[in-house]
Amino acid sequence: MADLQRILAAIDEGLDDSVARLFELARIPSISTDPQFKQDCRKAALWLADALKHSGFASSVRDTEGHPMVVAHYEPAARGKTVAHVLFYGHYDVQPADPLDKWHTPPFEPQRIKKNGAERLYGRGLADDKGQLMTFIEAFRHWLAVEGSLPFRITILLEGEEESGSPSLVPFLAANARELSCDAAFVCDTDLWDEKTPAIVTRLRGLLHEEITVRGPRIDLHSGLYGGAAQNPARVLAKIIASFHDRSGRVTIPGFYDGVDELPPTIKKQWKSMKFSERYFLRQVGLSEPAGEKGRMLLEQIWSRPTLEVNGIYGGYTGRGTKTVLPAEATVKISCRLVGRQNHKKIRAALRRHVKSLLPKDCTASFGGHAGSPAVVISEKSPFIARAAEGLKREFGRDPVFIGSGGSIPVVGHFKDVLKMDSVLVGFGLNDDAIHSPNEKYDLASFHKGIRSWAWITDALGRKV
Amino acid sequence: MADLQRILAAIDEGLDDSVARLFELARIPSISTDPQFKQDCRKAALWLADALKHSGFASSVRDTEGHPMVVAHYEPAARGKTVAHVLFYGHYDVQPADPLDKWHTPPFEPQRIKKNGAERLYGRGLADDKGQLMTFIEAFRHWLAVEGSLPFRITILLEGEEESGSPSLVPFLAANARELSCDAAFVCDTDLWDEKTPAIVTRLRGLLHEEITVRGPRIDLHSGLYGGAAQNPARVLAKIIASFHDRSGRVTIPGFYDGVDELPPTIKKQWKSMKFSERYFLRQVGLSEPAGEKGRMLLEQIWSRPTLEVNGIYGGYTGRGTKTVLPAEATVKISCRLVGRQNHKKIRAALRRHVKSLLPKDCTASFGGHAGSPAVVISEKSPFIARAAEGLKREFGRDPVFIGSGGSIPVVGHFKDVLKMDSVLVGFGLNDDAIHSPNEKYDLASFHKGIRSWAWITDALGRKV
Repeated sequence: MADLQRILAAIDEGLDDSVARLFELARIPSISTDPQFKQDCRKAALWLADALKHSGFASSVRDTEGHPMVVAHYEPAARGKTVAHVLFYGHYDVQPADPLDKWHTPPFEPQRIKKNGAERLYGRGLADDKGQLMTFIEAFRHWLAVEGSLPFRITILLEGEEESGSPSLVPFLAANARELSCDAAFVCDTDLWDEKTPAIVTRLRGLLHEEITVRGPRIDLHSGLYGGAAQNPARVLAKIIASFHDRSGRVTIPGFYDGVDELPPTIKKQWKSMKFSERYFLRQVGLSEPAGEKGRMLLEQIWSRPTLEVNGIYGGYTGRGTKTVLPAEATVKISCRLVGRQNHKKIRAALRRHVKSLLPKDCTASFGGHAGSPAVVISEKSPFIARAAEGLKREFGRDPVFIGSGGSIPVVGHFKDVLKMDSVLVGFGLNDDAIHSPNEKYDLASFHKGIRSWAWITDALGRKV
Repeated sequence: MADLQRILAAIDEGLDDSVARLFELARIPSISTDPQFKQDCRKAALWLADALKHSGFASSVRDTEGHPMVVAHYEPAARGKTVAHVLFYGHYDVQPADPLDKWHTPPFEPQRIKKNGAERLYGRGLADDKGQLMTFIEAFRHWLAVEGSLPFRITILLEGEEESGSPSLVPFLAANARELSCDAAFVCDTDLWDEKTPAIVTRLRGLLHEEITVRGPRIDLHSGLYGGAAQNPARVLAKIIASFHDRSGRVTIPGFYDGVDELPPTIKKQWKSMKFSERYFLRQVGLSEPAGEKGRMLLEQIWSRPTLEVNGIYGGYTGRGTKTVLPAEATVKISCRLVGRQNHKKIRAALRRHVKSLLPKDCTASFGGHAGSPAVVISEKSPFIARAAEGLKREFGRDPVFIGSGGSIPVVGHFKDVLKMDSVLVGFGLNDDAIHSPNEKYDLASFHKGIRSWAWITDALGRKV
């Protein structure tokens, strides 16, 4: 058994040093989208590989078509069959810093600023994701310094293209599947629920895009000569769109809800008890009332229920003033957010059948499907989730909440698809960190509690799983 | 009583001369939209004023802000209270001739070409409207040459801006209302039903434009973060558009059909018996089935029934590919074709009320109304229509059909609004005349029967009304 108190004490004592190391990394402007920072991306990768090597990892910088990956392995001396192998993921690339004139401090000269008793680390990438990935790197460094060895097999994968769509990730995972396939992956790129409450994201909605064009007459028609006699594709399309939802906000496409499970009562209870203001969430964007399926709380609507939304629509004359035309065609861009075991291929087919069934004579529809991705639901009962929850509870003094994310974190899907590996999403950001914006910050408390949390979690994972 | 047979014989004998006179006018490129032809427009006006003067009219060229008007008056020697005063309208300006390379003969070098037994007059403006207005000018010329006097008061108004939106017409009518107000106006700018069947247009649909923008969230939202919780204005707009019509194609807006009369049985019977192929009409534009109100024949749908059509729609992301956005707003451009006594102001108000009644919480609508115009319905029982019908029957050997026009002929509305004067729409064009296109033509038979028809109509009108 490791002497966790000694490790935690080392973390506490070494915090200034950890911040200094993070700042060293943060001074490298590793902006992945801009080719002029290509060498800086490599520099950040080398810095990380070097840091891991000094801690006791076998690390390497691995070239890709784009920016390099950092891969590091740790093998415990006493390796048994029951010892887990866990992957830790982060990304060292950052968003561009513009608009530069909105920054109060230079984006690549990170600073520690105390205000109202709280201390914050300002600079580009501090929260997304350099500060976050440094929480586990620093935890492992201290652990190894105190204990000499870690209690299970660890692989670290640090990507340099997350902010530019991760083009090299899937090929890299596929080419190195044997090396990178672990029992579970910890992805450190998400937020706490609030300063006092840790969170584990267990639900990520999937996505399906579809573009539908309804066509009627061969050409745009004069609305005086033909109006009243000719099909109007814009009207037909409006009827189709209107048919997608019933009065209660439920999607009407047959089979749409296949694979959508009701939220487990425990999770529902947890979400209900969470400090979340629906009013505040909506008021920020000028709304006042949840508009989704009736009878479901807002968090359900955005985390655990599927949607079918119009992203764009166009047809006929869209310039200034008027033109008395009946459009020959009209187009809608639709996307569905998927949950549970919804099958995006089946839903696409059902959507198309539904649209075709509503076409009147003389109208046709063509479809432009774009790739879809299934939802990710990680069982709250997974042993890795349980150990993570235990570790977080030790640090924060309260159970983590199991939350959803309406958006997507593609790496989770890639780990699942390519490596058949589930992810555990644990992070220490806050929703006011201003990631992707000027004056990005990471609370010193996030960084400190993050490092300590990984020590607790490492301890929990180290016990036989 | 006039010796009509002598007049008709003079018309027949003088046909070559009439064609020559028409060609003289047609050689003047009086294109009203192009400033470089400004002097040619004036030249055409002068030519017409001169021709009318030589026939026995008191004619003048009257300046406007744009191209001049030609006004000519004829006062019969014996003027009694019961003598009618009738206005005849035509326009001497023509469409531009481009694309020039599509013409088989030069557009402003008119030619008589015989093909398959039929003789045609080719050149820009021959049908629209120089050939048509010359039918009544030539009829009056022959009448006066044979009889020495016409049997009623005549005012001729020839416009030079019809092809460029008639900007000077309403001000001119208003400024000269006393001089130009007659018992009725004959507008010669429409077609025969077919070569053998004359037609009188008694129904012109009115028009109402409305632009509706539905707004929801303050900004475009991320469909992952907000989808399922936020109102989507594009979906709301689609529901609104879908609500405008019921399953039978009827408009659902309360009061929309106020002032819409059922077609008189005699007219309905006439339209049913007319040689009109719904299939052919629709097939030309790639359709096969009338799409308007169920249970009504196509001619009813386009001539005597009102419509509410979408002319254009747009909202959200309309570029290539996908963008996972919930649009902050969506807009539809609508136009209604109006019939009977439909009041466009009341309908606009009812439309707006209807839209507002369908807005969910957190959505608002704004409206951009554009000017509307009421429908024109001329009673088939008007004595002027009766005399015109009688004259046309004499010439063609069959009753004229009373038809509608889905489009608009603005001068009819202006005569009604400014001068409180009904119009009788009689013309001799054919739907293959290629007006506004290369190789515009006017059948010699149209021209000849047109001149003769006006002699018959003049005779009918000359009897006490």
